[in-house]
Amino acid sequence: MLKKGVAEFIGTFVLVLFGTGTIVLGGGIQGIGILGIALAFGLSLVAMAYSIGTISGCHINPAVSIAMFVNKRINASELLCYLVAQVLGAFLGTAILVAFLKLSNMSIDNLGQNGFEKLGYSGAFLVEAVLTFVFILVIMVVTGKNGNASLAGLVIGLTLVLVHLFGIPLTGSSVNPARSLAPAIFAGGKAVSQLWIYIVAPILGGIIAALVGKFVFNTEK
Amino acid sequence: MLKKGVAEFIGTFVLVLFGTGTIVLGGGIQGIGILGIALAFGLSLVAMAYSIGTISGCHINPAVSIAMFVNKRINASELLCYLVAQVLGAFLGTAILVAFLKLSNMSIDNLGQNGFEKLGYSGAFLVEAVLTFVFILVIMVVTGKNGNASLAGLVIGLTLVLVHLFGIPLTGSSVNPARSLAPAIFAGGKAVSQLWIYIVAPILGGIIAALVGKFVFNTEK
Amino acid sequence: MLKKGVAEFIGTFVLVLFGTGTIVLGGGIQGIGILGIALAFGLSLVAMAYSIGTISGCHINPAVSIAMFVNKRINASELLCYLVAQVLGAFLGTAILVAFLKLSNMSIDNLGQNGFEKLGYSGAFLVEAVLTFVFILVIMVVTGKNGNASLAGLVIGLTLVLVHLFGIPLTGSSVNPARSLAPAIFAGGKAVSQLWIYIVAPILGGIIAALVGKFVFNTEK
Amino acid sequence: MLKKGVAEFIGTFVLVLFGTGTIVLGGGIQGIGILGIALAFGLSLVAMAYSIGTISGCHINPAVSIAMFVNKRINASELLCYLVAQVLGAFLGTAILVAFLKLSNMSIDNLGQNGFEKLGYSGAFLVEAVLTFVFILVIMVVTGKNGNASLAGLVIGLTLVLVHLFGIPLTGSSVNPARSLAPAIFAGGKAVSQLWIYIVAPILGGIIAALVGKFVFNTEK
Repeated sequence: MLKKGVAEFIGTFVLVLFGTGTIVLGGGIQGIGILGIALAFGLSLVAMAYSIGTISGCHINPAVSIAMFVNKRINASELLCYLVAQVLGAFLGTAILVAFLKLSNMSIDNLGQNGFEKLGYSGAFLVEAVLTFVFILVIMVVTGKNGNASLAGLVIGLTLVLVHLFGIPLTGSSVNPARSLAPAIFAGGKAVSQLWIYIVAPILGGIIAALVGKFVFNTEK
Repeated sequence: MLKKGVAEFIGTFVLVLFGTGTIVLGGGIQGIGILGIALAFGLSLVAMAYSIGTISGCHINPAVSIAMFVNKRINASELLCYLVAQVLGAFLGTAILVAFLKLSNMSIDNLGQNGFEKLGYSGAFLVEAVLTFVFILVIMVVTGKNGNASLAGLVIGLTLVLVHLFGIPLTGSSVNPARSLAPAIFAGGKAVSQLWIYIVAPILGGIIAALVGKFVFNTEK
Repeated sequence: MLKKGVAEFIGTFVLVLFGTGTIVLGGGIQGIGILGIALAFGLSLVAMAYSIGTISGCHINPAVSIAMFVNKRINASELLCYLVAQVLGAFLGTAILVAFLKLSNMSIDNLGQNGFEKLGYSGAFLVEAVLTFVFILVIMVVTGKNGNASLAGLVIGLTLVLVHLFGIPLTGSSVNPARSLAPAIFAGGKAVSQLWIYIVAPILGGIIAALVGKFVFNTEK
Repeated sequence: MLKKGVAEFIGTFVLVLFGTGTIVLGGGIQGIGILGIALAFGLSLVAMAYSIGTISGCHINPAVSIAMFVNKRINASELLCYLVAQVLGAFLGTAILVAFLKLSNMSIDNLGQNGFEKLGYSGAFLVEAVLTFVFILVIMVVTGKNGNASLAGLVIGLTLVLVHLFGIPLTGSSVNPARSLAPAIFAGGKAVSQLWIYIVAPILGGIIAALVGKFVFNTEK
C-alpha cells in the first residue's frame, strides 16, 4: 500500500504542478487560452494514468477515491492512504510552482487557484457538482466491468479536457478537492473562503456518479 | 430498454450542455475559437461513447438513430425510445445552461443555437446534409462489420471535431437535430424559423450514409 | 476494384473539402490558425482511415499510392484506379467548396490552394520532398510488416497534423498532388504555375520513403 | 545495430527539424502559440515512435537512452551508437532548418534554441530536471514490464506535449540534450553559455526517473 501512496503522491503532484502552472506561466485565459489550460490538466491525467496508474489506478483526486470507496473498489484504509497522499502531492505541486515563480521574480498572488465571481455560491456548487458527476460517471464506467481498460486513461484524460473547456469560465473548473485545496491555502484570500465549495460539491457529484454507475450502468461485478 | 433510454438521455444532455455551453461561456469564435468549440462537441462524444455507449451504443443524435434503424441495427420501438430520450436530454442540457447563465447574470439570448445568414436556406441544407453524410458514414463503417470497435468512440469523436472545424463558419455545424432543437426553442427568433433545416438535412444525409455504408462498404452482417 | 475506387473517391473528396474548406472558411492563419488548419487535414485522414480505409486502405493521395506501388503493395491497374479516383474526388471536393462559397456570396479567389513566395522553387521543392518523405515513411512502417494496424490511422493522421504545423508557413503544406491539383485548377494564376512542384516533389519524397522503408525498416514481407 | 543508429538518426532529425522549425516558422509564442509548439514536439514523437520505434525503440533523446542504460535495457555499445546517432540527427535537423530559412531570406538568429532569462541558472536547472523526471518516468513505466506497449508511443508523445505546455515559458522546454545542442551551436551566443543546463539537468532527471521506475514502479523484469 505504501507504493500506492507514493504513486498517488507523484500523480497528484504532477496534475497540480502542470495544470495550475500552465495557467500561471502561460498567462491564463488571455494567454495560452482555455484550450491550452484544459489540455494541461487532461494530458497530466493521461500521462499519470499510464504510469503511476499501473500501481494505484491513478485516482489523483479525492472525489474519485471516495467514489471508488462507495462502490467498494477500495477499502477504508486504502481510501485514507490515497487521500493523504493526494493532499500531500498537491501541496508539493503548489510549493514547487511557488519556487519556480520566486526564482523568476514573478508574483505568487496567482497560483491557479479556483474561484468564481458572478456565479455565486449556489451556482458554483451546482456547476462543480454537475461537472464532477459527468467526469466521475465516465471514470466509473470506463474502468468498470464493461469498460475499456486499455483506452481508459486516454478517455478519462480527454473527459477532463472537456470539463475544463466548459467549466473554466464559470468556476475555473476543479472537480478535484486536492487540486483546489493546495493553491487556495498558498494563495489565501477569496480562494480560502470559497474553498468549501470545491471540496463538498465534487465529492457529492462523485458519489452520485458512483451510484448511477452501479445501478444504471452495471459498473460493478 | 429503459436503461438504454436513460443512457441516451444522459449522453445527449452532456453533448448539448458542454457543446453549446462552451460556445456561450467561452465567448464564441472570437473567444475560445472554432477549435475549442469543435473539441467540446467532439470530446463530449468521446466521453459518452466509452461510458453511456456501453449500454446504448451512444447515438445521442436522432440522425444517427434513424440511420441505425434504416440498416436494421435497432428496431422501431428502440428508435422511438432513443428519439424521445435524446430530445429530453437535449432540453435538460439547454435548461441547465440557462440556469448557469441566469445565476451568472448573463444574457440568455445566445444559447449556442445554430444559424446561418449569407448562406441561405438551400446552401445551409446542402452543408448540413453533406456534413452529416460524412459524419454518419464514418459511424456506420467504424461500428460496422469490419470496423474497429475499440477505437470507434475516439474516431467518431474526432470526426465530429472535423465536422465542426469546417462547418462552424457556415451553419454553426449541427449534424444533430436534437442539438439544434433545444437551444432554438429556448432562444426563439431566427433559430426557430431555420430549425427545420437542422432537422431535415441531417436526417437525409444520415439515411444516405446508411445506404452507402450498407451497399458500398459492407457495413451490415 | 470498383468499390476501392469509390472509397478513394469519397476519401479524397472529404480530405480536400474539409481541409481546404477549413482554411478558406476559417479565415486562414490569421483566423482559425495553423493548428486548426493542420487538424482539419489530419482529422480528415483519421476519419477516412477508419471508414473508407476498410475497403481501399485509405491512400487518398497519389504520392502514397505510388509509394505503395513501388513496394508492390498494389499492382499497376490498382494504381491507375486509385489515381483516377483520387483526382476526381479532389475535384469534387473543390467544386463543392466553390458551391458553398458562391451560395455565401464569398470570393472564390482563395480556395486553399498551395503556394510559396519567398521560398522560391528549389526551396519549395526541397520542403515538399522532405515533408512527404517523413509522412510516407511513417505510413510505410506503421502499415507495414511490423506496424500497428489498429492505431495506424490515428498515427498517420497525427503525422499529417505535424507536417502541416511545420509546413504551412513555407508552402501551405501539401504532400499530396491531388490536394494541390484541384484547388489550383479552379483558382488559376500563380497556383497553376507552381503546381508542378506540388506534384513532382511529393512523389519523389514518397518513392524515397518507400525504398528506405523497405531496405532499412523491413516494412515488406 | 547500424539500422538502430539510422533509425535514431532519422527520428532525432525529425524531432528537431519539426519541433524547432514550428517555433521559428510559426512565429513563436505570439504566433502559433505555446499549444502549437507543444504539439509539434509531441506529435513528432508520436510519428517516430510508431515508425522508427519499430527498429530502435525511438529514444531520440540522450537522456532517455542514458535512463534505459541505467536500467540495463540497452548496453554500453548500444548507448554509444544511440548517442552519436541522436546528436548527428539533431545537427542535420538544424542544418536543414537553416537551409529552409536561408532559401526564404529569413533571419537565422532564431533557430528555436532553448533559453531562460529571469529564471536564472539554478531555477532553469530545477525546471529541466523536474520536467525530464516526469517525462522519463512515464516512458520507463509505459514501456516497462506492466506498461501498455500498443499505446506507449501515443502516451509518451502526449506527455511531451504536456511538458512543453508548462515549460515553454520558463526554459523553452528541452528535456532533451540533443534537441538543445544543435540549435545552440548553430545560433551561438547566450544559447551556448546556457547549454550545459540543458545537457546536465535532463540527464540527471532521467537517471532519477529510471531508478524510481525500477524500485517503486517495478518497471524492469
